Amino acid sequence: MQMESDEREIRALVDEWMQATRAGDVQRVLDLMTDDVVFLVPGRPPMDKAEFAAMSRAQAGGDAPRFDGSSEIMEVKVLGDWAFMWTRLTVVATMPDDRRVTRAGHTLTVLRKQDGKWRLARDANLLSTVPER
Amino acid sequence: MQMESDEREIRALVDEWMQATRAGDVQRVLDLMTDDVVFLVPGRPPMDKAEFAAMSRAQAGGDAPRFDGSSEIMEVKVLGDWAFMWTRLTVVATMPDDRRVTRAGHTLTVLRKQDGKWRLARDANLLSTVPER
Repeated sequence: MQMESDEREIRALVDEWMQATRAGDVQRVLDLMTDDVVFLVPGRPPMDKAEFAAMSRAQAGGDAPRFDGSSEIMEVKVLGDWAFMWTRLTVVATMPDDRRVTRAGHTLTVLRKQDGKWRLARDANLLSTVPER
Repeated sequence: MQMESDEREIRALVDEWMQATRAGDVQRVLDLMTDDVVFLVPGRPPMDKAEFAAMSRAQAGGDAPRFDGSSEIMEVKVLGDWAFMWTRLTVVATMPDDRRVTRAGHTLTVLRKQDGKWRLARDANLLSTVPER
């Protein structure tokens, strides 16, 4: 039962992450990760929480793209106060000039339960740009 | 003590993986992963064990590149019979014509202990090609 409840909470976390990203609510996204979070992406150094915040706030400036997307959770495995999750993700960024950039792919994420709340702790983001048709 | 021993065994697994890859010993590499392993890489669908085996055997044919590389384990966290690991990896492929392709980056890996032996279970590979100088 506890494991089912944890899985539900982790699914709710993913929904909230997508909603907060759509809304451009940087602080709400930051609240969904641990303080020692590490983001791994291809072709550049790992990002910590401060770097993620700076990047997100820069993107939330005047010429901010709007973000939308969808996620499909392929697997969640709860291991006590830790969990890992595999998702399939599509993110569409719409620029102020209405140009759209779609990125799609998979993520492998380690989550941690702290003070009764699940948060992202390590995230490998394998998304790549989808060529326009 | 058990956790230290698990960490040592996981580090030994990484060393063995690199050695077996260098030696082109596909079967030995396959023995280091679970049957339900999933490999995630950017820009293509997830690979299962059969697909990994087919790709490795194709590469081990007549015009096989030689592989070398180095790995630095950034973090290992043991969670009972599961663990996750973050590594920084460099892989150099040398083609039969001596052309070299270097790929570098990070991996986030989920490991599982089965029958007393640690194996790779989920692997997100974020390596990208390093431009030649």
